[in-house]
Amino acid sequence: MDATPTHRPTLADVTRGRILFGGDYNPEQWPEETWHEDVRLMRAAGVNSVTVGVFSWSRLEPEPGRRDFDWLDRLMDLLHASGVGVVLATPTASPPPWLGHLHPETLPRDEDGHVERWGGRQHFSHSSAAYRHHAAAITEDLAARYARHPALTMWHINNEYCTYDWGDEAAARFRDWLRHRYGSLAALNEAWGTAFWSQHYGDWAQVLPPRRAHYLKNPTQVLDFRRFTSDMLLECFTAERDIVRRHTPHLPVTTNFMPLWEGQDAWRWAEEEDVVSVDLYPDPRDPLGAQSGALVQDMTRSQARGPWMLMEQAAGAVNWRVVNQPKPRGLNRLWSLQAVARGADAVCYFQWRQSRQGAEKFHSGMLGHAGERGRAHQEIRQLGADLARIAPHAHGGRVGAGIAVLHDWHSWWAGDQEARPSRLTDYPRILGAWHRALWQAHLTTDFAHPEHDLTAYRMIVVPQLHLLTDAAVDNLLAHVARGGTLVCGFLTGLADQDDRIRPGGMDARLRDLFGIRTLHEWWPLEEGESVRCAGFRGTLWSEELEADGTADEITPYQGGELDGLPAVLRKGRAWYLSTLPEPEPLRALLTRAAATAGVRPPLDGLPDHVEAVRRGTLLFLLNHGPGPVTVDVPGTHHDLLTGTTHTDRVTLDHRGAAVLRP
Amino acid sequence: MDATPTHRPTLADVTRGRILFGGDYNPEQWPEETWHEDVRLMRAAGVNSVTVGVFSWSRLEPEPGRRDFDWLDRLMDLLHASGVGVVLATPTASPPPWLGHLHPETLPRDEDGHVERWGGRQHFSHSSAAYRHHAAAITEDLAARYARHPALTMWHINNEYCTYDWGDEAAARFRDWLRHRYGSLAALNEAWGTAFWSQHYGDWAQVLPPRRAHYLKNPTQVLDFRRFTSDMLLECFTAERDIVRRHTPHLPVTTNFMPLWEGQDAWRWAEEEDVVSVDLYPDPRDPLGAQSGALVQDMTRSQARGPWMLMEQAAGAVNWRVVNQPKPRGLNRLWSLQAVARGADAVCYFQWRQSRQGAEKFHSGMLGHAGERGRAHQEIRQLGADLARIAPHAHGGRVGAGIAVLHDWHSWWAGDQEARPSRLTDYPRILGAWHRALWQAHLTTDFAHPEHDLTAYRMIVVPQLHLLTDAAVDNLLAHVARGGTLVCGFLTGLADQDDRIRPGGMDARLRDLFGIRTLHEWWPLEEGESVRCAGFRGTLWSEELEADGTADEITPYQGGELDGLPAVLRKGRAWYLSTLPEPEPLRALLTRAAATAGVRPPLDGLPDHVEAVRRGTLLFLLNHGPGPVTVDVPGTHHDLLTGTTHTDRVTLDHRGAAVLRP
Amino acid sequence: MDATPTHRPTLADVTRGRILFGGDYNPEQWPEETWHEDVRLMRAAGVNSVTVGVFSWSRLEPEPGRRDFDWLDRLMDLLHASGVGVVLATPTASPPPWLGHLHPETLPRDEDGHVERWGGRQHFSHSSAAYRHHAAAITEDLAARYARHPALTMWHINNEYCTYDWGDEAAARFRDWLRHRYGSLAALNEAWGTAFWSQHYGDWAQVLPPRRAHYLKNPTQVLDFRRFTSDMLLECFTAERDIVRRHTPHLPVTTNFMPLWEGQDAWRWAEEEDVVSVDLYPDPRDPLGAQSGALVQDMTRSQARGPWMLMEQAAGAVNWRVVNQPKPRGLNRLWSLQAVARGADAVCYFQWRQSRQGAEKFHSGMLGHAGERGRAHQEIRQLGADLARIAPHAHGGRVGAGIAVLHDWHSWWAGDQEARPSRLTDYPRILGAWHRALWQAHLTTDFAHPEHDLTAYRMIVVPQLHLLTDAAVDNLLAHVARGGTLVCGFLTGLADQDDRIRPGGMDARLRDLFGIRTLHEWWPLEEGESVRCAGFRGTLWSEELEADGTADEITPYQGGELDGLPAVLRKGRAWYLSTLPEPEPLRALLTRAAATAGVRPPLDGLPDHVEAVRRGTLLFLLNHGPGPVTVDVPGTHHDLLTGTTHTDRVTLDHRGAAVLRP
Repeated sequence: MDATPTHRPTLADVTRGRILFGGDYNPEQWPEETWHEDVRLMRAAGVNSVTVGVFSWSRLEPEPGRRDFDWLDRLMDLLHASGVGVVLATPTASPPPWLGHLHPETLPRDEDGHVERWGGRQHFSHSSAAYRHHAAAITEDLAARYARHPALTMWHINNEYCTYDWGDEAAARFRDWLRHRYGSLAALNEAWGTAFWSQHYGDWAQVLPPRRAHYLKNPTQVLDFRRFTSDMLLECFTAERDIVRRHTPHLPVTTNFMPLWEGQDAWRWAEEEDVVSVDLYPDPRDPLGAQSGALVQDMTRSQARGPWMLMEQAAGAVNWRVVNQPKPRGLNRLWSLQAVARGADAVCYFQWRQSRQGAEKFHSGMLGHAGERGRAHQEIRQLGADLARIAPHAHGGRVGAGIAVLHDWHSWWAGDQEARPSRLTDYPRILGAWHRALWQAHLTTDFAHPEHDLTAYRMIVVPQLHLLTDAAVDNLLAHVARGGTLVCGFLTGLADQDDRIRPGGMDARLRDLFGIRTLHEWWPLEEGESVRCAGFRGTLWSEELEADGTADEITPYQGGELDGLPAVLRKGRAWYLSTLPEPEPLRALLTRAAATAGVRPPLDGLPDHVEAVRRGTLLFLLNHGPGPVTVDVPGTHHDLLTGTTHTDRVTLDHRGAAVLRP
Repeated sequence: MDATPTHRPTLADVTRGRILFGGDYNPEQWPEETWHEDVRLMRAAGVNSVTVGVFSWSRLEPEPGRRDFDWLDRLMDLLHASGVGVVLATPTASPPPWLGHLHPETLPRDEDGHVERWGGRQHFSHSSAAYRHHAAAITEDLAARYARHPALTMWHINNEYCTYDWGDEAAARFRDWLRHRYGSLAALNEAWGTAFWSQHYGDWAQVLPPRRAHYLKNPTQVLDFRRFTSDMLLECFTAERDIVRRHTPHLPVTTNFMPLWEGQDAWRWAEEEDVVSVDLYPDPRDPLGAQSGALVQDMTRSQARGPWMLMEQAAGAVNWRVVNQPKPRGLNRLWSLQAVARGADAVCYFQWRQSRQGAEKFHSGMLGHAGERGRAHQEIRQLGADLARIAPHAHGGRVGAGIAVLHDWHSWWAGDQEARPSRLTDYPRILGAWHRALWQAHLTTDFAHPEHDLTAYRMIVVPQLHLLTDAAVDNLLAHVARGGTLVCGFLTGLADQDDRIRPGGMDARLRDLFGIRTLHEWWPLEEGESVRCAGFRGTLWSEELEADGTADEITPYQGGELDGLPAVLRKGRAWYLSTLPEPEPLRALLTRAAATAGVRPPLDGLPDHVEAVRRGTLLFLLNHGPGPVTVDVPGTHHDLLTGTTHTDRVTLDHRGAAVLRP
Repeated sequence: MDATPTHRPTLADVTRGRILFGGDYNPEQWPEETWHEDVRLMRAAGVNSVTVGVFSWSRLEPEPGRRDFDWLDRLMDLLHASGVGVVLATPTASPPPWLGHLHPETLPRDEDGHVERWGGRQHFSHSSAAYRHHAAAITEDLAARYARHPALTMWHINNEYCTYDWGDEAAARFRDWLRHRYGSLAALNEAWGTAFWSQHYGDWAQVLPPRRAHYLKNPTQVLDFRRFTSDMLLECFTAERDIVRRHTPHLPVTTNFMPLWEGQDAWRWAEEEDVVSVDLYPDPRDPLGAQSGALVQDMTRSQARGPWMLMEQAAGAVNWRVVNQPKPRGLNRLWSLQAVARGADAVCYFQWRQSRQGAEKFHSGMLGHAGERGRAHQEIRQLGADLARIAPHAHGGRVGAGIAVLHDWHSWWAGDQEARPSRLTDYPRILGAWHRALWQAHLTTDFAHPEHDLTAYRMIVVPQLHLLTDAAVDNLLAHVARGGTLVCGFLTGLADQDDRIRPGGMDARLRDLFGIRTLHEWWPLEEGESVRCAGFRGTLWSEELEADGTADEITPYQGGELDGLPAVLRKGRAWYLSTLPEPEPLRALLTRAAATAGVRPPLDGLPDHVEAVRRGTLLFLLNHGPGPVTVDVPGTHHDLLTGTTHTDRVTLDHRGAAVLRP
């Protein structure tokens, strides 16, 4: 029975011209008199949406089968009366102690068989039938009870799905999943390459998750276990989603992603969501915090194919780093406006009121321990007003990007194997280095899956895709064939969908595309080591390549074992980089490639540290630099934040921003 | 049946005018002919006390229920005949292999369920009924047999109690302990804040020790598990203590603490001991080894409320560091005299004769592998003579201190949670930094629990007390109210006894005391980072504070995000430091506060690296510097070590000491 | 029934005047059409030997008891027809999944009870009866089937034996092994020193492998567990060896060692092999890679007491380091010639054709992903030709060495205990430092066990032998007594065979030998610290020694606590070094000692970085330096590699080599 209607509701059905502003709200941690203070302060701060119930299971179902919804009824009524919409969460991310006690098989096991017990959160096995049964039951009752409540605006399923399980019930589901993927044991043996190290499976019962081994595990088994894990978590999500959809087909459903988290194929997940949302916590001390935020925002927007929801960020400090600094004055606003600039129609926080007890009491809230007078809360109020001011113009607007960066979880998983040429070629690091260069070049980029339709983009950037399916290779070739620019980094296309090395160590069609005859050897570099090339220095990696004479331009290595061999090849509009240039030359190279492709920054002559993004008709200017800065903006613009008009130039304060309308 | 007499015996009943000198003695490792050589060499070295039986269980009870005491009879007789007193230990720290084999449930389990087996030591669960039964039985028989032996001077229970257990029997006892602490599940749920993350307990059977979890554990559950562990170990101690007391009400009982060990609430434990003893192993290479020793000595003296026992130290190297250096010439004597200066009436060692086999054969002894001619043994002889010389004057003397440093294990435990503002604010590090400043200021200090009677002190120093009960806050306020000086560091009073954050992020009465209106944000610093304040640099931590206008003196931060905000506030005699000043300015600040409080060093004009402590009528001068030094000591004094008389000045050799009598 | 004939076959029976050249070959990973390409390319490269079947168990026995040998028949025929000999491996290093599934007790457990499962390799317990049974059965059938196949030249048993097991079946065998070693529990208790920490065993059933303990484990228990592990693995080896010998008494048997691997007493193992073979993987980036290779080659030659087999090396990169670099041009050839120079009659690789799938697909092969045109494969072809050129002259030749370095696994194991004076005195590091000094002094050395007959050597070097039996001490004394030179490092002879410290902390006869009266204290140094001595600096270690006045020469420490005490003592031809001199002074000292002993390098005036070794009548010159170099070689020589004649001097290219015949 498919409960999905033809036209799915969207985030726009919830925002209705506003930018959502609010956060996770945990009334169960507070006496009811506090709720009234909360609502008063929410209104004063412009909060229009809160997420309720994320961790309320044991409050809603204090013992197996007994429901206690009365308090939630009162809360929903109160919020509705106060004009605050409710994103209602299924509470299934943290089962009550009774579940694990009654059904120990719901508890996940690690690769050594260690059990994760209650007392934290997320102590559920995605594969447990008992867990799924109880999760479905509470979801059903919750959906039935609040389906028609006027405060309800959206569903939030579970929270940050992120668990693994190597236990026996997971093993059984893994076998089913493999049976479905491969059809036969013979096909599995072929895909996993079990001729190596005598791993041939003669019976399905012998197949296990990749538990502890004496030495290196089968990498395709590990790869499939990651695929399986993402799919099992997704099954948990869709099961609950389908329940709430049945009750409220008119309301959108989301679950919150963690930024660039390794465990979920978020391309696949996003297809199952009505609204794509993400949690985003750059380190306030990170000089590239704004860039790492932009990366996640670009990724989330691309997954959403339109406006998206910033489900969680911090008003101040988080609690899980070694040293957790608060956001300095202005930073919360600056980074929030950045999210809107990059397509967010919801700016929300974990959490409204900072907890007094429990493991996250040192995680900041919109209303911190310092209370109403606290500096952070005062800035929240200012931000609420700012967002209200820009919402009518920003809301729903599209962010244009002529460039797509290709990203694929399966390729990440395949490349992240234990024994490989270099364990320093960490995928997020490589992806981040390329995005950083584009961001510093003031080029707004989308992300795309290598098999996505790429016809909208003039330029494709491939930082690193260890694994490329044949279809993905076709896609890249077609892009270049139709005149598109392609800039491609090393360790791309070396393996197929099963992590089987392609002949020659790199797909032959790709080698042709770039003008490479033979890839003799990979020469990974040590941490901190660099290699001299004509005009720049390369890091992390180098290659002993033999060109085939068809390239239009070759930048050689200089000195060392690779002296004179090609470091960078360009053949038409296809570029291959066999090393990772240092940040500045990589920025220059990408700027040049983009210019050739006809892709330019939103403004000419942008100073360093100033981020400029166009969303719809608006131009967002964000100052991430160490002091005030003046930006040339030809023409006359109205600044929505200040109400002032600027002609030809705008001065931004330290951590200042402008939202300009022509 | 309470075997405790009204007046308990004390260390003085054992020392009888002497300073105890000796060490652990393990005759079971040696043939009996060696015992006679031992006794000869002990006498030559001035040894008057040995601790016997610490790890003798399998020798005393080679199979379940069978006793072999004959060898111990002979040994006790021999020692008595030689004038060496015996501190007899219950052997319960290391059960024989037969116990774990017969009763696997006596073996502790870690949070993952891994079992700790025999083959090392301390492989017993504090919660095991079978262990407690067998420990009581051997203790009973040992006490009965030697109660009237003339060599017996004191009882030593077990050894360095320090184990944890997450197993099932411990879980059952943990539930009992919690039932006793909270009375009801509702109260437990409230104290643990189980509304957070859906952790509400509906049945006692669901409550577990904090075993492995997927993500952050409930911090109050962890806190209570630490309290429980300390209490269970204490139950093990008192059970054996009560047995030996029943047989020998006239003899004192001790167990040896590890210095500032996290697992035991030693304030609570010390109340149950007749003699407080400690094991002390500063690294001979540590430039602050003498200070870290002084800290432990001050702590132990404060727990003992008078003379205490140095149960273990090393004559040379230990075996458990990465690199274990011996004590250079003179250091053993210098540090031993330091212990006496700070109140010890017993200077003992692990161990008399260095082992030839087993896991500690590379731990030095008073009689090392080099034998009688060894340099370390020769120095032992000299020290024995020195102690005999000063004993008549030093023995029993009180160490005066006008300052108390507050310390509390519960606060340490609460602050040491996984997710917190900064994992760099390690409690022993903070405590050490403050004690170091006082020590370098030549100020002798006691330690005290925050709920202790503080009326004897003019000045109270609070390096950091994350958790303060209401009674503790009352105590601090009363101290200031009666004119006392209080110097208080950051992260103090933020939580109550359940680790519940107090409104405003710091107790409101404390904020009033210091003149703080709002604690906006904590700004922890990175390792090696510092923040500029007027006149000094702060480390590790800073705060965004708003003063309320009542402070008498404010030292501001300079530059950065906190520019102009208060770094240090003084309101009357109450000081608040929102950062950790570097060592020299912290010393200067504490010197100034002490002077205002009327507390001064034992001598004026003391050179750096010279430690001066008054005990009773004696003045100890200890030279920890890199060469000889001369100290101004007005008046004429007799040096007990050399027999010489000094007028107005004393010259100390490198690692030299003087014990001066007016 | 003993199947061993009186005269065992040797490597010479296989080489028959050639140097074996080839590698592991895994045809089961490839379609049969690829086999034909393989054979063609092997012939082109001069390959004359491949090792087949190492990981073929699941291919040969896809389900319990069912054999599939047909493919191997075809392969053997094909190889034979192509003139490539086959070293046939028993496939027992990686049991098929069905074995662990059917017999979970065949899977090893670690000290915490964690199981190592299939999915990697070597997931078998050496102690499992079921494993041994199935391994014997497949070995039997394999041997029976191919005993008379003309391609078969040698047997290779298992692969890199290297597993541990702490499980219950291993525990039972450990008890048997101990019963055999000690005869009685009383003897075990005495040897293990169980009087320490109450570890007395009253029943054999209480004895366990050294599983997880609360604190330090019994070091002799750990030592015996290592001895036991080596012996159990050896039992696995000899069981299979005896089976194949029964079928093919005329063919030699080997198993491949890992270089200087801690788990096997390779002296003992080598006695059970007909051919000693080793796998060797120096890091191409290691500036001392050639020296670390030379160490392993010298060790293997000494174990073989003649020509040996380089079973595995890499043509390019390995896959298991953090960063895996390929071999630069020329290095594969240079290091291969080095192996021949130092006695190898076989230069083989893991593996012939690089895998496309599985955990080692990034490990290079003789035929890499780049294929036939790949630079590494082209160099393989050159090397094949080189080896064919020198084989007639090099093959079977003896390498002369006047010096033996003493090495003993038991001593290594004993010294490598958890709690010891310094964990920085890592045994392989010490051994490597001494061998490096000898290598840089151009002195070719053998290795020997301390109880071996040493009469062939003029000079004995003992870098560090924690444990020395009485027989070993006798052997050293006899060497010096007959006029031999002995140079001995610290931490030698401190313990007996049970790791019982010898009186005085070092064997008394050794102290006499060097002129040491008292070893007062060990003074280990920190990482990076050094101590000044007259004429050089010492590292890692120093000692507080008292000389007895009989030494002929004493080099003192200068400054610090040890100022003036002896750092180095020489008494006649016996030298004792109480510190580790920096590389250059250690080289100088050993050069001087060797000269006194009448041992000289193969040539005078050798430049740095040029390795010169004499094998039989040949002189190998190998240039490990950064550029070309000219070497004085008096007289006229014929270079087998180039066919040219040199008079009085030879110029070597960068990474160049010459193989000179007078």
